[in-house]
Amino acid sequence: MRAIFIAVGSELLEMNKIDTNSIFISLKLLEHGILTDMKFVCNDEIENLSWLIKKSVKRAQLLVISGGLGPTEDDITREAVSKALKIPLVFKEELVDKIKTIFKRRGIDMPEINSRQGFMLEGAEILENEVGSAPGQYIETDDCKVLLLPGPPQELKPMFLTILKEKIAALSKYFIYKRTFKFSGITESEADSKISGIYAKYKNIKTTILASPGVINLTIMGRAKNAVDEAKESVEELAEKIRVKMADYIVTEKELSFEEFIINELIGKNISLSVAESCTGGSLGDRITSVSGSSKIFLGGVISYSNDLKTSLLGVSKELLEKKGAVSKEVAKEMAEGIRQLTGSDIGISITGIAGPDGGTRYKPVGLVFMHINAVNYDNGIYQIFPGDRNTIKKRSVNFALNLIREYLNSL
Amino acid sequence: MRAIFIAVGSELLEMNKIDTNSIFISLKLLEHGILTDMKFVCNDEIENLSWLIKKSVKRAQLLVISGGLGPTEDDITREAVSKALKIPLVFKEELVDKIKTIFKRRGIDMPEINSRQGFMLEGAEILENEVGSAPGQYIETDDCKVLLLPGPPQELKPMFLTILKEKIAALSKYFIYKRTFKFSGITESEADSKISGIYAKYKNIKTTILASPGVINLTIMGRAKNAVDEAKESVEELAEKIRVKMADYIVTEKELSFEEFIINELIGKNISLSVAESCTGGSLGDRITSVSGSSKIFLGGVISYSNDLKTSLLGVSKELLEKKGAVSKEVAKEMAEGIRQLTGSDIGISITGIAGPDGGTRYKPVGLVFMHINAVNYDNGIYQIFPGDRNTIKKRSVNFALNLIREYLNSL
Repeated sequence: MRAIFIAVGSELLEMNKIDTNSIFISLKLLEHGILTDMKFVCNDEIENLSWLIKKSVKRAQLLVISGGLGPTEDDITREAVSKALKIPLVFKEELVDKIKTIFKRRGIDMPEINSRQGFMLEGAEILENEVGSAPGQYIETDDCKVLLLPGPPQELKPMFLTILKEKIAALSKYFIYKRTFKFSGITESEADSKISGIYAKYKNIKTTILASPGVINLTIMGRAKNAVDEAKESVEELAEKIRVKMADYIVTEKELSFEEFIINELIGKNISLSVAESCTGGSLGDRITSVSGSSKIFLGGVISYSNDLKTSLLGVSKELLEKKGAVSKEVAKEMAEGIRQLTGSDIGISITGIAGPDGGTRYKPVGLVFMHINAVNYDNGIYQIFPGDRNTIKKRSVNFALNLIREYLNSL
Repeated sequence: MRAIFIAVGSELLEMNKIDTNSIFISLKLLEHGILTDMKFVCNDEIENLSWLIKKSVKRAQLLVISGGLGPTEDDITREAVSKALKIPLVFKEELVDKIKTIFKRRGIDMPEINSRQGFMLEGAEILENEVGSAPGQYIETDDCKVLLLPGPPQELKPMFLTILKEKIAALSKYFIYKRTFKFSGITESEADSKISGIYAKYKNIKTTILASPGVINLTIMGRAKNAVDEAKESVEELAEKIRVKMADYIVTEKELSFEEFIINELIGKNISLSVAESCTGGSLGDRITSVSGSSKIFLGGVISYSNDLKTSLLGVSKELLEKKGAVSKEVAKEMAEGIRQLTGSDIGISITGIAGPDGGTRYKPVGLVFMHINAVNYDNGIYQIFPGDRNTIKKRSVNFALNLIREYLNSL
């Protein structure tokens, strides 16, 4: 079965607003062996959308449309589907009653305009919206199954998961088996040259490398017609070869972010952490505290952007700053030791570097960053000259700092 | 003139990799009065892509395709266009010679596979690639102008800007005039209810509100057939009305991020800044240091995630912490005063709150955040109960803290 996804909304074309529903939906479909061949974004013009729907239902067996189910004039999805598939819209009083109840719960009367949301395609199944006012719709035509979902992700997600389980999953004729790896401490091209020779031999396994600055995600995925075991064997065989070859760089095989993995490990071992950040300006702390539960082990830290703070709070010696400069291995080490002493944490991590675009010199170019970790009986540092713009350099630095924690955890 | 954009690449469908070229291109086209009605993402299957191209050239007057121009078997764009438009591919020896030179400059021989990049659509104009090996192509057919661009943004952008200037801009029959506003200190629905009545009267002006947590961007745009002045007058009239109605909330009318605006203002006035962050964990410092030049006025700060650090570094009294709790107006005030004293900065900003999902109580629910600013003869604080998940709450808190700086700057 092949799927097409359409996101409806002029704002998705004109501004820096990116459709993310398609990613959620195509990944979930993929887990059930359904490939999304194409995804489209269409503006709020009914002629355009109905043209696109007409073409799509001839091409795909499943068409998922998100957005345009609201109450305003811009919300054209109902009408566009009706026009494209020549299915009349019928008014359902009971739907409007439900929407009225939702508004009443918020203590307001339903605006008259919301009664537009009572129109359904004749023969469509109503999909209840647990979160907002726009109901979804599911209809099977001769060519194609068509699914209409509301645009806001918090409304779309639960609705889609329900109909996926109840109806769509059963339509798939394939089984999928996949494995994911997360690597750090290695560049994308180094990783690729180490493992591409291995997976090239597995013609039927789809391999995707996705690199963000400092972290690499690898997905290997097999598809089978009769039983998941047909795909499992070769995927597991390949996974084992990758495990051996990449042992030094594997962060996790779970679907966690790098920081989730590290923080969960620290929580599990009850190891406390503090940070001393210069060029990253708080990004490392920000990433750490994006993980819920991080307060169990994260004490805090110092953003020592100025040299004065490096001295007054972290105890970095003035002489060292003058002799070696703020961006140096020695200062990184004293920052890590200093923050550990200041906060009494088990681990202290420091970052100092030149994020650019200014401030580089011949010997200390833009992108030069020192990262350091200090703990009881453990001390380790690394430096890199990172490519990229200011924010990419900050991001890479944070990932390399997290990687120092990973190496420390491995040493225990 | 109406445009369609196609991004080619299976990776854009399967993983968390988002096409951003479409946003760049549709915004640039819009500046020249060309609307992008639809954008598509297609996988690496030649049947799918050529189907999509065939349909698109019947619908749009300009078709921009990005990606799939590399040297590997997955790179199918040349063949798909050839098939869809029935234009033969011809081999250009001189193109391959150029690619060989590019490789030689890097000190390597051109892999044989790259000679695939020597195939051009018959009659197409070659677009030089200053950055990578894949040349672009531009061809005018009876139905539609078709533009083939490489996928990597750093290669696509300069190539597109060149052809836009040389050929495409002249095809547009419209002039565009637009104004942008950035608001803070007000919710999206409050902003909408204040101004929707004003702009509803301007039927020919397109208005887009785009809200991120704590900051609202409003674009108003007019389109005219003969001269830009036809659009200018009504857009400026509406802009002036918005300026009056929203005076208290306007951050800037320039196309700057919120933090760029604030930091540039501080640099211009030579006002130094430090931060004391609890629940945001470093996000405010991260946002501030994402602006280049921020080191001129940003001294740094303390991530006082634990109560101990609030006391030992920021001088928040233990009694106060016990009596009022870490998430309180009084502690926020002492944190802001404390960081200013500790660093000697002109302004101290603090944030303390409950980012969730745990830690809320009946009287202090998840999302409750106190933000405070302290400066010479100036002291101001605000609290909010923010909706959203952990990271949304952090983001809103940072934007409200930046808004405190804006209000301070307005008071000078």
